[in-house]
Amino acid sequence: MNSIGKILQLTTFGESHGPALGGILDGFPPSVVIDQEFIQSELDRRRPGQSAVTTGRKEPDKVEFLSGIFEGQSTGAPIAFIVRNSDQHSSDYNNLKDLFRPSHADYTYLAKYGIRDHKGGGRASARTTVAHCVAGALAKLALKQAIPGLDIYAFTSQIGDISISTENEAAYSRTVSESNAVRCPDAEKAALMEALVRQMKQERDSVGGIVTCIVNGCPAGLGQPMFDKLHASLGAAMLNINAVKGFEYGDGFAVASQRGSYHNDTFISENGKVMTRTNHSGGIQGGISNGMPIRFRVAFKPTPTIGLEQQTLTTGGEAISYEATGRHDPCVVPRAVPVVEAMTALVLLDHYLTDKASRL
Amino acid sequence: MNSIGKILQLTTFGESHGPALGGILDGFPPSVVIDQEFIQSELDRRRPGQSAVTTGRKEPDKVEFLSGIFEGQSTGAPIAFIVRNSDQHSSDYNNLKDLFRPSHADYTYLAKYGIRDHKGGGRASARTTVAHCVAGALAKLALKQAIPGLDIYAFTSQIGDISISTENEAAYSRTVSESNAVRCPDAEKAALMEALVRQMKQERDSVGGIVTCIVNGCPAGLGQPMFDKLHASLGAAMLNINAVKGFEYGDGFAVASQRGSYHNDTFISENGKVMTRTNHSGGIQGGISNGMPIRFRVAFKPTPTIGLEQQTLTTGGEAISYEATGRHDPCVVPRAVPVVEAMTALVLLDHYLTDKASRL
Amino acid sequence: MNSIGKILQLTTFGESHGPALGGILDGFPPSVVIDQEFIQSELDRRRPGQSAVTTGRKEPDKVEFLSGIFEGQSTGAPIAFIVRNSDQHSSDYNNLKDLFRPSHADYTYLAKYGIRDHKGGGRASARTTVAHCVAGALAKLALKQAIPGLDIYAFTSQIGDISISTENEAAYSRTVSESNAVRCPDAEKAALMEALVRQMKQERDSVGGIVTCIVNGCPAGLGQPMFDKLHASLGAAMLNINAVKGFEYGDGFAVASQRGSYHNDTFISENGKVMTRTNHSGGIQGGISNGMPIRFRVAFKPTPTIGLEQQTLTTGGEAISYEATGRHDPCVVPRAVPVVEAMTALVLLDHYLTDKASRL
Amino acid sequence: MNSIGKILQLTTFGESHGPALGGILDGFPPSVVIDQEFIQSELDRRRPGQSAVTTGRKEPDKVEFLSGIFEGQSTGAPIAFIVRNSDQHSSDYNNLKDLFRPSHADYTYLAKYGIRDHKGGGRASARTTVAHCVAGALAKLALKQAIPGLDIYAFTSQIGDISISTENEAAYSRTVSESNAVRCPDAEKAALMEALVRQMKQERDSVGGIVTCIVNGCPAGLGQPMFDKLHASLGAAMLNINAVKGFEYGDGFAVASQRGSYHNDTFISENGKVMTRTNHSGGIQGGISNGMPIRFRVAFKPTPTIGLEQQTLTTGGEAISYEATGRHDPCVVPRAVPVVEAMTALVLLDHYLTDKASRL
Repeated sequence: MNSIGKILQLTTFGESHGPALGGILDGFPPSVVIDQEFIQSELDRRRPGQSAVTTGRKEPDKVEFLSGIFEGQSTGAPIAFIVRNSDQHSSDYNNLKDLFRPSHADYTYLAKYGIRDHKGGGRASARTTVAHCVAGALAKLALKQAIPGLDIYAFTSQIGDISISTENEAAYSRTVSESNAVRCPDAEKAALMEALVRQMKQERDSVGGIVTCIVNGCPAGLGQPMFDKLHASLGAAMLNINAVKGFEYGDGFAVASQRGSYHNDTFISENGKVMTRTNHSGGIQGGISNGMPIRFRVAFKPTPTIGLEQQTLTTGGEAISYEATGRHDPCVVPRAVPVVEAMTALVLLDHYLTDKASRL
Repeated sequence: MNSIGKILQLTTFGESHGPALGGILDGFPPSVVIDQEFIQSELDRRRPGQSAVTTGRKEPDKVEFLSGIFEGQSTGAPIAFIVRNSDQHSSDYNNLKDLFRPSHADYTYLAKYGIRDHKGGGRASARTTVAHCVAGALAKLALKQAIPGLDIYAFTSQIGDISISTENEAAYSRTVSESNAVRCPDAEKAALMEALVRQMKQERDSVGGIVTCIVNGCPAGLGQPMFDKLHASLGAAMLNINAVKGFEYGDGFAVASQRGSYHNDTFISENGKVMTRTNHSGGIQGGISNGMPIRFRVAFKPTPTIGLEQQTLTTGGEAISYEATGRHDPCVVPRAVPVVEAMTALVLLDHYLTDKASRL
Repeated sequence: MNSIGKILQLTTFGESHGPALGGILDGFPPSVVIDQEFIQSELDRRRPGQSAVTTGRKEPDKVEFLSGIFEGQSTGAPIAFIVRNSDQHSSDYNNLKDLFRPSHADYTYLAKYGIRDHKGGGRASARTTVAHCVAGALAKLALKQAIPGLDIYAFTSQIGDISISTENEAAYSRTVSESNAVRCPDAEKAALMEALVRQMKQERDSVGGIVTCIVNGCPAGLGQPMFDKLHASLGAAMLNINAVKGFEYGDGFAVASQRGSYHNDTFISENGKVMTRTNHSGGIQGGISNGMPIRFRVAFKPTPTIGLEQQTLTTGGEAISYEATGRHDPCVVPRAVPVVEAMTALVLLDHYLTDKASRL
Repeated sequence: MNSIGKILQLTTFGESHGPALGGILDGFPPSVVIDQEFIQSELDRRRPGQSAVTTGRKEPDKVEFLSGIFEGQSTGAPIAFIVRNSDQHSSDYNNLKDLFRPSHADYTYLAKYGIRDHKGGGRASARTTVAHCVAGALAKLALKQAIPGLDIYAFTSQIGDISISTENEAAYSRTVSESNAVRCPDAEKAALMEALVRQMKQERDSVGGIVTCIVNGCPAGLGQPMFDKLHASLGAAMLNINAVKGFEYGDGFAVASQRGSYHNDTFISENGKVMTRTNHSGGIQGGISNGMPIRFRVAFKPTPTIGLEQQTLTTGGEAISYEATGRHDPCVVPRAVPVVEAMTALVLLDHYLTDKASRL
C-alpha cells in the first residue's frame, strides 16, 4: 500500500509530525554515481519556506542515507533514507484532534482505521512527498547514466484562471520556470500567477492549478501492453500525489471533440528514424513509448487548509465552525512541480528496468 | 503485466484473431451465486454489431467458464473463462503486415518485442476488453451480495462537441441511457450524438468522447493511503482501457480555477450519518472513499482506424499511403461504457477485500 | 494465490473434474520458437496410465494453446493454454461428498471457504500439475535459447527404504532414468523400487520418496539477496507441489553435523574461471548462483489415497470408516519428476529475466 | 527483492557496517498496543555478545521507531524502524577487499552486481536479521491481540551430532530453552551442545545445527491453495534466513520411507472440534492449516567464517591462503532461534490478514 513500482520499488513511511519521514528504494541498479548535492538540491525545490508564496513552516529537510551506497556509488542493495522533522509545533494541532477538517482525510482515515494520528494530517500530509523527491532524484541519476539525453521537465501551466499557451511548449525552458516563485516558464504569466497566490494568502483562501510535464529523449519501447501501460503507470503515480484530481496525456480530454483524421499521428522517417508528424498521442501508443516527447498534465485542487471560517463536524458528530491557524501554502502547485518530476523519473526507471526483462 | 488487482487479480490473454480470448479471475470470494445469464448480458453490452453505430463485425461472444464454479456458486478457486473468436477474416489483415497504422500500436510493439502479430492489432486490439466485461460482471455479482445498494452506473456524457449537462447527473438513469445506441442518458442529446456518429461513418472518419461513471452506495473506508489510493486504482484501471487519454474524478481539471473556499466539501450530519454538503471531492478524500457518490470521467480518443487516406511508413521505413478497409466503430464510446463499469467493479471489489485485511 | 513468479508469472486454474485445467504464462519473452511436440512430450511424462506403477485413469492430456504464439514463435503476449478433462467418472466421487478423507485437503478447504468442490479433490488435486508441466516446457524452450548448455535433470533418488547413492550423482543419466517406470538412474535400484510400488498397489497402500534435481550450466549471478534468494524461490516452488514435505539444497539437513572446515567450498580457478573445489553449497551462495551445479532434493509423502480401510469423520462430525475406491498412484514420485523439472525451469527463467533488470 | 509478504509487507535495508539497518513494516493493522520493551527484549535474544558461545562483537542494538505509532498504538500507517551500527571496526575488513571468502557471498555478489561492499559481508551479513526480529516482535504483538492462545516456539534441536528426541516435543518448554546459551529445551543435551560450540571456538572451526519450531493454537483455514501454501510461505521465509540449507514440516524427509497407512492422519472429533489422531502432516493439509500444531524444522550450515587457514582466490583470480581474524559465532543456531520465530510470526500474521480477504 505504501509501495510503488515493479522492479524499482519505493516504499515510504512517516507522518508530518513524527520523528522522521523517508523511504527505501529497492531494485536500484548498482554502480550509479550518487551525487548527494544534486539530491539535496532536488529536495530543496520542494522545501517549505523557499519563497513568499509558500508556507512559512521552516524545515531544513536534510536527507540522510542509511544504506545501499558504498564509496559514492550504489551497490544494488536497497537505499534507505530519512529526513528528520524539526519544526513540529505539534501543539498547533491539538485543536484538530476532535474535528474533521473539510476536504482533508481526517474523516476517511478514522472511518477506515478506527484510530487517527491527528497531528498535521499524519500519513495523509503532503509532507510525505519529501520521500518522493529523494527517490526521484536517485532515479534521475540512474536515468542520466542509462539514457543520455533523456530529460524530464515539469512546470506550472495554470494557476486559477491564469494559464499559459500550450502551442509552443517546446520553447519553454527551466531557466525561466525555475527562476520564479511559481515555476512557470512564461515570465509574464508567472508574475500574474504570483500575484494571484499572494492575493489568496491575503484573503485566507487558496487556489488550484495544473502542472505540465514533458519528457524528451525517451526511447521507444517502454511500457507494458495490458495493465501496466506506460501512461497508466504515470497516471497512477500522479494520482497518488496529494491533491491531484486529474491526469491526461497527449491531447487529453480535448480528444473528446476531435476526429480521427485530425488526431491520428502519421508516421514519417527522419534520417532513418521513425517519428510522427504530430504528437497528439503524447509519445505513447498502445501503452508503449514511441520515441516522441511524452507529455502529460496533472490537475491539483486548491489547498484544503484555508484561514476562512468553515462549517464542519466534530468527531462526535456535532456541527462547529473552524478556522485553520497553522501555516500552509495558498497554492500547492509550485512545490508540486518537483514532485511530479520525481514520480515521473521513478516510473520511467522502473519501466526501463522492466523492459530489459522483456526479452531474452 | 497482464494482471491487475491486489487480492482480486484478473489476468487476461488473447489476441483479436487468435483462437480465443479470456482470463483468470483469482481471489474471487466463495459462495457467490454465479448468474450466467447476467454475465452474458453484460458481455452483450460490448458486443460488436449491436447497433447501427457500431462495427459490422459479427462475433457471438459467448463466454465459457472452465473452473472455480461448483453447483452454481463460486468456490474460492480461480475462475477461468474463454470467449472463442469466430469472425476472424484474417485475410483482411494481410495488407497490414508490412506497415505501421497511424496512432495504432503497430510500431511500438515492433520496437519493443522485435516481432508482431499484425492481425487485427493482436494483443493491442480493443477486442481484449471482452475479458474485462466477463470479470467485471463477476465482480458485480460479488459486490451485490456484499454491499446491498451499491450501484455502478456509467454513461456517455460527450461525443464530439455534443455534451450533456453535469448539473443534474443524479437524475440520469440507465433506463434512458441503455435504450439508445450511444448510451447517453439525455435522450435529445443522444439523438444528436447518434447522428454525429453516423455522419462520421459516412465520412469514413471517427470521433472521440467522454464516459462518466457514478458509484452510489459505496461505504466509507475503501482505498489505501499512499500508493494505492482508491482514485489512483480507478485511474490506472481506466487508463489501461484502449483509447483512453484522460481520467479525472470529482471536479477534475476544473479544480485548477477553483478556490478552496468553493471546492472544500463541508461535513454535515444527516440522521447521524457523516456526509458532505457538496461533493467536489467525488466521493474520495485522501485516497479513501467517504461514503458520498464516487464520480469520475474518462476521455476516449477517436478510433484510430479510419477509412480516409492517411500517410504512413512501411516497416521498412518507406512512405506509403493507406486506407483502412476493415470493419470498425466510428466511435468507441458507446461500447466502452460497459467496459468502464466492469473495471470499476473489479477495482471496488479488490479494495473491498483488501480493506477487510486492513484490520485485525 | 494461484500465481507464481515475478517477471515470468504463471497463473493456473482448474479442478480435477471440471471442464478443463490450464494456465496463463505472462512475461514470456518474444521470439522463442515454440516446439509443440516437445511440450506435449513433457506433458506425457506426467500423464496418468503411462506405466504399470501409475494410476489407471486415462486422460489424453492434450494441450491446446489459445494465445501468445504467432507463426510458431512467442510474441511477448501472455500464452494461455488449456487441457480438457475427459475421464471424469464424477460419480466415483459422490461418496466423498460428505466425509473428510484423511490427509487430504477436504477439511481444510471447507474450514477456509465454507464450500467445497468434493470431486476428486477439486483444486487440491495433483492433477493441477498439468499446468506446471506445460508452462515448464515453455520455460525450458526459452532457457535453451537463452543459455546454451543449461540442463535441468530430475530423477527419483528414493522410494520407501530404497535409495541410491549420492556419491556419484554426476554420472547419472536420463537415458537410464527415463527408461524405467520409476525414473531412477540406477537401473538395479529402479527394479527394486518398481517392485516396491507394485507391492504397495497390491497391499492397497502407498509409499513416499525423494526426487533429486541437478541443474548444470547455470551461470553465476541468478538470485536476489534478501527475500528472493534463488534457493528460496526453488524451495517455495517445490513446497507448493502437491505432497511435498521437505526441501533441501547442497548438503541440506546433513549440514547440521558438519564443521565449517569441511563444509566450506574453497575457490579455485580453472582456465580463468572461478569455481569451487567441492560443492557442498549446492551451486548457490548468499542466495545467488555461483556457476557450479545447482542441486536440491524434494521429499514427497505417500499418496494419501489408499484402498485400506481408514477411520475418519463425516462433514457432520460423525465417525465412519472409509476405503478409497477410485484409481490412484501408489507412489507419486515417478510422475512428480517432470513436475520438479518444470517448476525448476520456471524459477530459473524468472530469475534469469529478473536479473537482466538488476543492472542499467 | 528486499520485501516479503502479501498484505503485511516487510522491506528491509542496511549493511553490516553501514550507518544503520532497519525496515518498514507495511500493512500492519491499527490499534495494536506497541509494547516497546517486549520488542527490545526480542531483539536482545539475537544480540551478539549475549553469551560465551556467541561472537564478541558488541552492539547495543537499540531499536528506534520512526513512524506508524501514535500514543502507544499502531495507526495502520507503515512502521519504520532503524538500528544503528556502532561497533563497526571497519578496518578489520580491509584485508577482505580483494579476496573471495569461501562459502560467503563475496563472489556471487560481485558476479551479479559488478561492485561489492566488502565490509563484513555488506548486505549478505547475518546482521541484517535485526530487522527480522523487530518486525517479528511487532507481528507477535498483533497475533497475540488477534488470536489469543496462539504460541510460536522455536528451539535448538541439534548442533553437530548432538540432537534431542523428537518424541516428546510437546513437553519442551521455553523456560528451559531460553535459560541456556544454546537455546535447547533438553538441559542435558544443552550442556553437551554448549561444550561442542566452545570446542569449535577453540579449534577455530564452526558447526551446524537444526532449529525446530512449533506453533500451537493456530486456527484452521490459514494458507492459500496453489502457490501460496502456508508451508511454502514458511519454507520460503526460512530459506531466506542466512545459512539455511533445508526446510521440512510435519514428518519432513522421513516421509520418504513411510507408507500411507502410517502417515495419514485420521480425523477424530474432540468436544465437537475436528482434530487428527496423529500429526504427521505438521498442522497443514493441502497448504492450509488444520488447527493442529504446526511443526517444522530448519537446517543451518556451519558458520562460513572460521579461523583455520583456507585456500581461496583473490578477486583477480590468484590463489591465496586466508585465515579469518574478525569476531564471529562458531555456531549460528542459538541466535537463529529468535529469527525463526520472528519470520514465523510475520508469515502467520500475513496469512491471517490475507485470509480475512478470502471471503466476502
